[in-house]
This record gives sequence, structure tokens and C-alpha cells, in this order.
Amino acid sequence: MQKLKQKTLWLFLCGISSKIEIVCIEKEKRMNMVKVGIIGATGYAGGELVRILMGHKDAEIIWYGSKSYIDQRYDEVYRNMFRIVDAVCMDDNMEALSKEVDVIFTATPQGLCASLVNEEILSRVKIVDLSADFRIKDVKVYEQWYGMLHKSPQFIDEAVYGLCELNRDQVKGARLIANPGCYTTCSILTAYPLVKEGLINPDTLIIDAKSGTSGAGRGAKLPNLFCEVNENMKAYGVATHRHTPEIEEQLGYAAGRELTVSFTPHLVPMNRGILVTAYASLKRKEDGSLPTVAELRAAYEHYYKDERFVRLLDKGVCPETKWVEGSNYVDVGFIVDERTGRVVMMGALDNLVKGAAGQAVQNMNLLFGLPEDEGLAMVPMFP
Amino acid sequence: MQKLKQKTLWLFLCGISSKIEIVCIEKEKRMNMVKVGIIGATGYAGGELVRILMGHKDAEIIWYGSKSYIDQRYDEVYRNMFRIVDAVCMDDNMEALSKEVDVIFTATPQGLCASLVNEEILSRVKIVDLSADFRIKDVKVYEQWYGMLHKSPQFIDEAVYGLCELNRDQVKGARLIANPGCYTTCSILTAYPLVKEGLINPDTLIIDAKSGTSGAGRGAKLPNLFCEVNENMKAYGVATHRHTPEIEEQLGYAAGRELTVSFTPHLVPMNRGILVTAYASLKRKEDGSLPTVAELRAAYEHYYKDERFVRLLDKGVCPETKWVEGSNYVDVGFIVDERTGRVVMMGALDNLVKGAAGQAVQNMNLLFGLPEDEGLAMVPMFP
Amino acid sequence: MQKLKQKTLWLFLCGISSKIEIVCIEKEKRMNMVKVGIIGATGYAGGELVRILMGHKDAEIIWYGSKSYIDQRYDEVYRNMFRIVDAVCMDDNMEALSKEVDVIFTATPQGLCASLVNEEILSRVKIVDLSADFRIKDVKVYEQWYGMLHKSPQFIDEAVYGLCELNRDQVKGARLIANPGCYTTCSILTAYPLVKEGLINPDTLIIDAKSGTSGAGRGAKLPNLFCEVNENMKAYGVATHRHTPEIEEQLGYAAGRELTVSFTPHLVPMNRGILVTAYASLKRKEDGSLPTVAELRAAYEHYYKDERFVRLLDKGVCPETKWVEGSNYVDVGFIVDERTGRVVMMGALDNLVKGAAGQAVQNMNLLFGLPEDEGLAMVPMFP
Amino acid sequence: MQKLKQKTLWLFLCGISSKIEIVCIEKEKRMNMVKVGIIGATGYAGGELVRILMGHKDAEIIWYGSKSYIDQRYDEVYRNMFRIVDAVCMDDNMEALSKEVDVIFTATPQGLCASLVNEEILSRVKIVDLSADFRIKDVKVYEQWYGMLHKSPQFIDEAVYGLCELNRDQVKGARLIANPGCYTTCSILTAYPLVKEGLINPDTLIIDAKSGTSGAGRGAKLPNLFCEVNENMKAYGVATHRHTPEIEEQLGYAAGRELTVSFTPHLVPMNRGILVTAYASLKRKEDGSLPTVAELRAAYEHYYKDERFVRLLDKGVCPETKWVEGSNYVDVGFIVDERTGRVVMMGALDNLVKGAAGQAVQNMNLLFGLPEDEGLAMVPMFP
Repeated sequence: MQKLKQKTLWLFLCGISSKIEIVCIEKEKRMNMVKVGIIGATGYAGGELVRILMGHKDAEIIWYGSKSYIDQRYDEVYRNMFRIVDAVCMDDNMEALSKEVDVIFTATPQGLCASLVNEEILSRVKIVDLSADFRIKDVKVYEQWYGMLHKSPQFIDEAVYGLCELNRDQVKGARLIANPGCYTTCSILTAYPLVKEGLINPDTLIIDAKSGTSGAGRGAKLPNLFCEVNENMKAYGVATHRHTPEIEEQLGYAAGRELTVSFTPHLVPMNRGILVTAYASLKRKEDGSLPTVAELRAAYEHYYKDERFVRLLDKGVCPETKWVEGSNYVDVGFIVDERTGRVVMMGALDNLVKGAAGQAVQNMNLLFGLPEDEGLAMVPMFP
Repeated sequence: MQKLKQKTLWLFLCGISSKIEIVCIEKEKRMNMVKVGIIGATGYAGGELVRILMGHKDAEIIWYGSKSYIDQRYDEVYRNMFRIVDAVCMDDNMEALSKEVDVIFTATPQGLCASLVNEEILSRVKIVDLSADFRIKDVKVYEQWYGMLHKSPQFIDEAVYGLCELNRDQVKGARLIANPGCYTTCSILTAYPLVKEGLINPDTLIIDAKSGTSGAGRGAKLPNLFCEVNENMKAYGVATHRHTPEIEEQLGYAAGRELTVSFTPHLVPMNRGILVTAYASLKRKEDGSLPTVAELRAAYEHYYKDERFVRLLDKGVCPETKWVEGSNYVDVGFIVDERTGRVVMMGALDNLVKGAAGQAVQNMNLLFGLPEDEGLAMVPMFP
Repeated sequence: MQKLKQKTLWLFLCGISSKIEIVCIEKEKRMNMVKVGIIGATGYAGGELVRILMGHKDAEIIWYGSKSYIDQRYDEVYRNMFRIVDAVCMDDNMEALSKEVDVIFTATPQGLCASLVNEEILSRVKIVDLSADFRIKDVKVYEQWYGMLHKSPQFIDEAVYGLCELNRDQVKGARLIANPGCYTTCSILTAYPLVKEGLINPDTLIIDAKSGTSGAGRGAKLPNLFCEVNENMKAYGVATHRHTPEIEEQLGYAAGRELTVSFTPHLVPMNRGILVTAYASLKRKEDGSLPTVAELRAAYEHYYKDERFVRLLDKGVCPETKWVEGSNYVDVGFIVDERTGRVVMMGALDNLVKGAAGQAVQNMNLLFGLPEDEGLAMVPMFP
Repeated sequence: MQKLKQKTLWLFLCGISSKIEIVCIEKEKRMNMVKVGIIGATGYAGGELVRILMGHKDAEIIWYGSKSYIDQRYDEVYRNMFRIVDAVCMDDNMEALSKEVDVIFTATPQGLCASLVNEEILSRVKIVDLSADFRIKDVKVYEQWYGMLHKSPQFIDEAVYGLCELNRDQVKGARLIANPGCYTTCSILTAYPLVKEGLINPDTLIIDAKSGTSGAGRGAKLPNLFCEVNENMKAYGVATHRHTPEIEEQLGYAAGRELTVSFTPHLVPMNRGILVTAYASLKRKEDGSLPTVAELRAAYEHYYKDERFVRLLDKGVCPETKWVEGSNYVDVGFIVDERTGRVVMMGALDNLVKGAAGQAVQNMNLLFGLPEDEGLAMVPMFP
């Protein structure tokens, strides 16, 4: 059984030092554990990184960075971590941090990672950036959709888009990983095989996405209050949501040309989960016939049959967010509508796991030569 | 103040009679109140009919029909009605009922109304059928999508599709009203002006709809259990949902030709509310330009500016189901996506009110020459 | 049918005037309508006042006061009110307001009403204060539990505690009504008959209360975020909640002596509703026997049988918050536990209606000689 | 990385055999893994056993028993298990099962385990019974509260009440474990130290408990429908809930005498979690003073400071169900109310983990000499 240990921490606040005793689980120490620093450990994605890494055999968190809770006990910010995490929150000094750890996760607002990173830091540590700063190759597109200047455009080129299922090999050798967005991970994996194999007309692609509320972050904002979200459903960011160019870029690579897609996110009264319902016209063959269900299925199987975290559902089964909750899985299914000549592609994932922290750890595993699913074997929790 | 009265009811069960005393609110009696019978008063739509009619000045419910709860006190089936309704549930004998009331609402499973109605009954009472039996003019389409034989095809022609905003005048003189489906009401009202005015290409119409769980009815089925629905989201009935042909028929009338649309319903963890997100390509003008936002808005205003229950939202505002909860409103908005040349049309209603019982009462009001909004002035409840 | 009218409003912002056109329902005008001003119209209780008063035949709202949204359209703050309310938010100038209206509702934080009220204002208008400022007769108790100085202790004596069922006659002649708290209304009405009739030992009274999240207000605070409340339950304010002395004072009057009760509120992941579960030891009769269920029931009936808004449930039926949602009802029930010699008293109400705005309107009706249930006949909404 | 394997299963249905191919994760095989059979694997507690055991290094499930889904693929009953479990459901033949496994979990309705178990079976395997059949030592009390005859009273004596924190040593040598109820585990652990140390008067103990809906099971019953539970709260089983005698027996052992307690369960609109709020009068010392907070805290620390799964919260912190969700933790806290001389003890756990399946695995670990927390290190999931 894991032992409980007592640890003494010293807090230096306003010139006064105070001692706190924290009792917590002693995590088994192994040789050569990957040392992890998290900048933005007190947001929901940061909290999920901590949850996942607590169960990771080969990684230990050294630094819990937070802008809002510096010097506060982490287990007071997230009381689920009581007796599990025995640390106080540190600042977001990437420079200092880079000397103490092997990898830095930045789970921070747009722009922060780009403003902190530099060559020296990158020469010392791997960075997995959960923000959008390095996801989009065309800096103008980034600046237009995000409404801010990019502070480190020089690193955009070398950054690898960390959608492991598509870019596994590039990830392995990278220094800087652009961890994909939650909506984008789900949208891309849902449509990728049919776009790549040319089975649909990508110009007809319409993505209607629905997300649980943790995707909106832990900021204290009126629209995210319980009574505003509960028993309610709405679209938001229609035609302007920032994940749109990210989807277009990645699916554009698959199609071999530039794409424009319709993407509409919706807010759902649940904590976790993204469901994507994507529509596209099937591309007719030369004889005028539509591709068959078997052909579409073969395309999905070609790309996903050996994937640990993509589950192609049985024929006719529609994904549900609850079936992947708490896990790193993406469930994918599709249904052909012969009357309209369209295919309805559907995907579901947990926005905080495969849509953020889980995928970040998957990238870390690839970066350090660990088994890709280490720490990620969580079985979905139902109900 | 409304008075409390005591009423004595006699129950005859298994040959034994028993007396129950019910105390309840005495509703003010007026001359010439419309006498109402409800078949299926113990489903969710039936319960909502009762809630609405309790606040209707010119109607009184005479008959609470129910297949499952015959001879049980209605306020034991729906305890919100304690001290409000003082009746026991009756059977679903439409023949007998038709001699006692002016109007019958059938809030029953598909097929029942068609199997009970006949010329004699229709000669005596008005019928507002909340099931789908008389919504679709082509009996073959009905039988194909609903998988059952139609028992009274002879009345399909005279039945009026009771979407009041479109068919107000025909409703007034009808004997038999086909009350529209919840998804269809929302879908049609959301897209109607742009289809009718030829501003979109109707063949590109894709309707992604999301519904609260009361739409699934009060049957005790595993998929509707709290733990199966809560914290979950899924599509269902993809490419096969029965509201599809109903939408196609009605929007086909607007377009002036047959249409095929993609329609996908989703289940949302909330009690009430339907949100429709509809996508279509804007039809370019002869000079190749897209219709402007002002032109689209003018189309909506043309049809809805005098409508009591359709609220065209301000520019850029997206509907939310919570803003219409408990009321008979449909909120409609749209956003143009110039990048894709598509318009995103959105609509929200309460599936039990404007999507079922409220619209049924609106139809009743038209049938009996009452103010169209009598009993329907409920302000949406927020939060 | 109610007509839609167009109204032109002028906004003067930063020296620039701008015109807005609002289309909305024209409420029927009657003679001698009570003119209403609301200070704090943009909180949840204020919003509920507006919802209820929109359906009140004899009252019209003249002034929508708000600290945070001055000069904003009210229907942009609460979009459920689109096309229903055609006003912009005013400030909270009670002095000016008192010259324009007959009654002022203050749905504001503690201390504000006491700081604004004065003799001149009270000579002109009735005030129904939804805050706690005038609920507690002993100013020291108020200042201790609320941690603030009372600014108008001179009006405490004349203020009437507006629990209509207990103080109906005093309310009628008052100038200043202290509208009871949500928890207190539910707690008092649940236990009152048994305390008053001496059937329980009031020193053993323990009140375990559960509330929906709207009770926490519309402030943008971390603990009220959807993801913090949803799928969670907790107690808060244990042994320190401010409604405790209010309950103790009122039940003390019933008992004829000072009382100390245990009161523990809990936060529940739902929008509306308070459920009270109260425990007390039954007082044995002289022969050592416990009071019978019939005797307890008789006590409840004595006080509630003619009450319009208190529903004493049938024997053995436990109240549920959903059965009263959206209505002004309080449902009350009780169960005797012979093994422990205790009675479990239970009550349920909608915290925003009978627990706040509904009761405030009930008080207004009494103040102005209107039928006590005018505007309050809303049938509970289920589901 | 764990490998995906393909497995072929043969189904024999109605005389026809059909082959299914299931692809799933290959769990690492170790020497001497404990072979597990589950009777009732398709209820919520059974599903949670499967979820937990999938992450257990030293156990493998051999038999997924189910009454309702025999011969169906398990991952069609619980689609979260797709690609994780590659088995079909078996019947509940305990006799046959006992020859194939080392331990049987019975997650079945009351009475079934008692009707199946016999000496021969017990001589072959360990049984952990998640039903109430062997929890209560006095068979008359069992039969009275459960309303059924006990089929195997001869095994009641040897059965060990598997609340590991209290009965760790007895569990280790047992053949038959009575796994405690969800409410009881939470109630007992919340109050135990103060009862045991005589710091409260146990006759004044009142337990007000709140549970998520998964506690009601996966049966398709009207009261458990989403729309009946959501936005609702109620008490149920007042003064008659079957967990009452179980609490009384166990706390009676702690008090050293028979006890009668008030216990009231409530249904909360959330999937998982139990919150207990328990009230008792503090026992005054000989000098008339109340025990201090420090003394109460010392009592809790005495029993729990080395416990892996009981977290005594910091002073003044109230437990919340979300902080333990998905984990085997029980969070315990208390607050003294000096005004009333009472202590409010609070506890929270996940009813499916520590309240059912987690505790069952904890018992299994003790039975087989494994580390007590093997497979149970899940970090609580938030949000």
C-alpha cells in the first residue's frame, strides 16, 4: 500500500514565514523520472494534468505554476487533491523553471507561452503548449483570428502539431509541441479518414460541435454561472470561433489543398465532453454511384485500427460523451444518409483529457520515449 | 382571491366504491367556456396541456384521459397539480368523450388518434391531434417513416397542419388539426423566411437539432434514466428520424418544390427546450454577390414582425433555450458566414409549449374565435 | 390578443444620445394600477419580480433599478424579457423613485435598504424590502450576524415581518415590510404548527435545508460556476448562516419563549427550489404517550386548511421541490418515527417565488387591498 | 504501450452459433492473478467493479454474470467498455462459477446471495456480497426491515462486516464478506470516532443523507427518469430506510450499547456521491464544559490519521461530493455549534466506489494479502 508521509513546507508571505505540515500519499520514486513543470496548474486543464500525472509511473511534477494562487497550497485550490499533492503554487517564471525540469506544460491563456519562450529555454527543456500559440503555421491567420501579435513567430515553424495519431513521428523529435485544441482534436479525428481518402467533398464540410462547460475555463464570469448554463443550450462564436482556422489547416493538409469549413460550437449543461456532428456530401465515383458504407468503414479502419485511443464504433452506433468521460479515448462513428447523399460523421471525447491534458501527456510520452499510453489507461467512468 | 373548495369524488374500483375528498382551487366559471377533453393527459405533453389550460380564461377541462392511470387521482400522477386539479383519470373513449366536450386533444402515441377518429366524432367536436397521424399528406410517406398502416387516410386531406404562423386562416375553419412536431415547429420557423424568399439553396439545408429529455416522453425506459442522460450528449435517429419528412413537406411548400434535408436530433441533459442550428448556402444574386444581412433580416421581419410568439432576435444574438422556457415563444436569429457563403439560422423553443401543448392551445384559440394568445401569455422563466 | 407595440427610447450615454426602437407586448392598462419601482431589478429575485408582475392585472412596473446595468436595456440583461419589457435600467435613487411609484421593492444586498430609507420616503410609498435589513427586531442580533451597522434602526419596530400566513393582518396596515428570507419562509412554515401547538420540544429542533443555486445570486463568483456546482453537493455556513436568528425569532414567537435551533444549509445542483427536512422530538403527553399522527395533522390543518399557498400533502407524502417550481406554493408534509420518538417535518418551495419575489407580491397585494393571489396563480411547472 | 488484440468469441443463441470478433486492450498477465467472478456485472455497482478491476494489477475478471443480458456482449451493455472488455455476459450460476474463480462479487438484489451460497461454495471461493444479506447479525431485524425470509441464516455469524477501517483484521481471514451499504459506510465513518470516544450522546444522533441517483440502480423505473430527478430534490424512505438498522448495529458496537438513530435519505440530481450531515449533542464533561474542537479533532485523528482512504479535512472545511468523485476516499469534517451544544459531522464519498465497488475491492485486497490500495489509487476527478 502506498504510504502516507508528512511533509513540512515553508511559506514566505509578506516577509513572514509560516510552516505548514501536509500529510499525503508518497508516490513511488523510480529512476529517471521525467521532471514536469506546469504553468497554469490551477485552471481546469492544469488540474487535469495533475490528476493524470499522479497516476503516471515515470513522471513527477516539480512545479505547480499559477498566476492567481502563488504561495497557496495547491490542495486548497483543488480540494480533490487533498492528501495527494503536497505543494504550494509557484509563479510562472519559465526561465527559472526550465532549469529544474525536463518538460514544461503551458496550460495558459493565448499569448503567454509565445511571450515567455526563447531559444535558451528550448535548448534546455521540452515544451508542450496547451494554448493556441503554435498551432497555426500562418502567423497572419493566427493574429487575425486571435486578435493579438505573435511574440515568437520564429518558433512557429519548428513547432509540431501534437495530434499524435497524425503526427506521431514528428512529435518524437520535437522541442516544442503545439497541443491541439479540444474542438479541433475531435473535429479532425472525426473527419480525417474521409477527407484524406477523398471520399467526401471537403468544401461541403459542416461541423456542429457541442461542448461541456469546463471548456470555458475556471474564470468567474457571469455566462458560466450554474444558473446561466444549467437547463440551457446555445450556440456561440458562430462563424468566428478560433478553432476554425486550426481545423481548416489540418484538414487542408489531409485534402491536399486549402479548405473552408463551417464550424459552430455550442455550450451544453454538462461538465465534460465534446460531441462533434459533421456533415459532408459524399463524392460520387466516376460511375455516379456513392461510396458504400463498407468503403467508408475501410477508410476509418485504415487509419485507426491500430490506434490505442481512437475507437471506431460498430456500424450504426453513435458516439456518446459519457462513454469516454475521464479517459483519453475518442469514439468515432458515421452514418450514411442515402436520401441526401451525405455522410454524418460523429466523434466524442473528454475535452479535458484527449482534448487537452491527456493528449499533452500522450505527447510527453512520445517525446521521452515512454509507452504512448503510460498514465493514460483510465477506463471511462460511467455513469 | 380564488377560493378553495372541497369536492367529493366517487371511485368505483373492482366493484367497491370509495369516496375521496379533494380540496382545490375553484376556477372562476364564465359563460360559454370551451369544454376540453384530453386523451393522454398523463404524458408530459398532456400534463403541459393541463398546466396551460388551468390559466386559460375561456376553457375548462372536463376529461383527463389516460391509458395507464384510469381511476387514479390526476394529482397523484402529477403532484404539482395537488389542490389544483380535482379529477380522476378517465379512459380514452373518444366516442363517449366527443359527446361531452367541444374539443379533444390527443396527446397519444402515433396511430391512436387515426384509429379512434370517425366522421360522427368529427361532426360533433374539434380534434387537435398532437401525434403525427395527420401531419403528412402523403399516406405512403407516413406509413414508410412510421412503420404502421394509417387507419383513417380519408381524413388526411381535410386535416390542417396547425403551424399557426403559416396556416392561421385554414386552422380557423378546420375540424381536425394536425399539431406540428416539436422539432419540426422549431426547424420550420427557423428556416421558413429564407426558403420562402428564395434566399438560400434549399438543397443545402442541414438541420442539427438538440432537445431536452422531456421530448422522449414519460415512459420508463433505460435510455431515459437520469444517470444515462445526465452528463451525456448524443445524436440519435440519424438519417431516420420521423420528423424529417414533416420538415421536408412543409419547407417544400415554401420552396415551391420537393426538398430533401438532412436532419439530426440530439439528446441534451436538460428537461425542456429545443435548439435548432440550421445551415444553408446563400443563393447568389445574378451579379454573383451574396444577399446582405439586411436583406435576410427583411425576409424574417416580413413574416414575423407582427407575430405574437415569434421573436426575431437582434442582429448577432443567438437564441438560447432558457430564454423561452415555459413560454410559447420561438426565438429566431441568424448569422452570415461570408467565408463559406453560408447562413447559420438558429431557433429555440420549449418543446412542451410551442413544440406541443402551447401550440395546441393556440390552435384551439383559433378554432373557437378566441384571442390567439389567451392562456399563452406565460413569461419565460429564468433561471 | 395582446398587441405588439413599438416604443422609442432615448439613451443618453457619454453625452451622446441614441434612439432605440423596442417592439413589445402592450399590457392592458387598467384604472388605478399600482405603480411599482424595483431597486435591484437585475438580480435573480429582481428578475423574478418582473416575471411575476408582467402577469399581474393591477400593477405596472415604472422603474427598473440596477446598480450594474444603468442605461442598459433590461431585455439585454434578461433576454427572456425580449419583446416583453421595453425599459432601460435606472439607478437606485430611492428618493426620486418614491415620487413616482406607489410601492418600492428592494431586492438588494443587505444594508442598502436601511441606508436609503427615511421618514419622507416612507410617508410617500410602501416599501417591501427583500433584504434582511428589517427582519430581525433586535438590532444587536442583526449587527452581530450580518457584521454591519444598521443604518436605520428607528424603523425596525414598525416594520412588519411579511410572512403573510402568520402576519396577514399586520401586513395590511404597514408602510415597511420585511420580506422573509427563502430558507426562513420554508423552515418556519414547515415547523410552525407543531411549535405553536406545543407538540414538539422546540429545543430539539434541527433544520437541514437544501437549496438550488439561484439562491446564491447572480454575482460572478468562482463557487457558483457551473462546473463547481454541477454534480456536487455540500453544506455551507454551518452554525453561522444568517437565516438562523430569523428562524429562531419567528419560531420563538410561536413557542412563546426564546429558542436556539440548529440550521444547516446545503447547495444543490439545480436552479430553483428549497427543501427543508426538520427534526424534533415529540413532546410526550402527561400519560407518557406520544401525540398521534392524527393530532399532528390536525395542528397542520388548523393553520393551513384555508391557506391559498400552503399545501398540506396527503399522509406519508414527502414534498419535492419540482412540484412547486415556478409557483408560490409551499408544500408541507411530515412523518412520525415512533422508534426515535421524533417527527420529521418537510417543506418545499421555490426560493425565487414564495421564497422571495412571489411572497413580496403577496405582501404588495395585501398592502393595496388586492386579492392576495393576484398575479400568483402560476401552476407549478413539471417537468 | 498496451497492445490491441483481436479475440474471437462464439455465441450460441437459440441453437445457432455465431462468431464475433472483438478487438480490445490486452491486459498484462502476471503470475497468480486473483480470478474474479461477478454476479450482477451489469448493474451500476457491477459496472464500477469492472472499471476498477481493469486497473488492478493482480486481478482478472473471468465471469461477467448478468440476469438480464445473458449472451450479450458486455461492451454493448456498457459502451464505455468498448475495446476494453472482450467478454459476453454469463448467467448467475454461483455453483459453476465457484469452480473457476478465487473470489465472487455479488452485486445483486437483496436475497439472491443468501439463496445461492452454500458450504461447498464457501469452501472453494471467497465471497464479497455487495447486497445486504449478511450485514445484519440479528436475522429477525434483517427479515423485518427487508421484508423477506433469510435463506442462509447459518452463515450470518461467520460473515465479516467489511468496513475495512474498522474490521481490517477480521476481514483478512474471512470467507464471506458483507460489503457495507453506501449510506452506511458514509454515516458510520462520519460519526464513528465521536461515538467510540463517548464525546457525543449517541441517542441524539440524527443523520441527514443525500445521494446521487446511481444509488437507485439501473432499473427502468419512472421515478428515476431524467425529467423526474433533474431540477428536483426530495426525501424518501423517511423512518423506514433499510440502511438504518445497519448504521444502528455498527455504531452500537462503537457505543457499547444498543442505539436508535434517525436516518433520512434524499435523492439529489447528480450521478454519484453521498453527503452525510449528522447532528448530535456533545456530551458535557463532569465540570459541565463541552469537549473542545481540539479534543474532537484528536478523536478523529486517532482513528483516521493512518488511514489511506479517510481524509480528515482541515478545520472548518466542509466535505463536498465532487472532491471524492471516482475515488475510494471518504472525506470527513466537523463543526461545533456552541450555541446549541451540538456538533455537525459531515462526510462525503462516491457511492459507487467507497460506497460499493471500491470498498469491495479493498476487501478483496485484504482477503488475498495484496496491498490494500491496489487498483484503488484513482485520483478524484474534478470537475
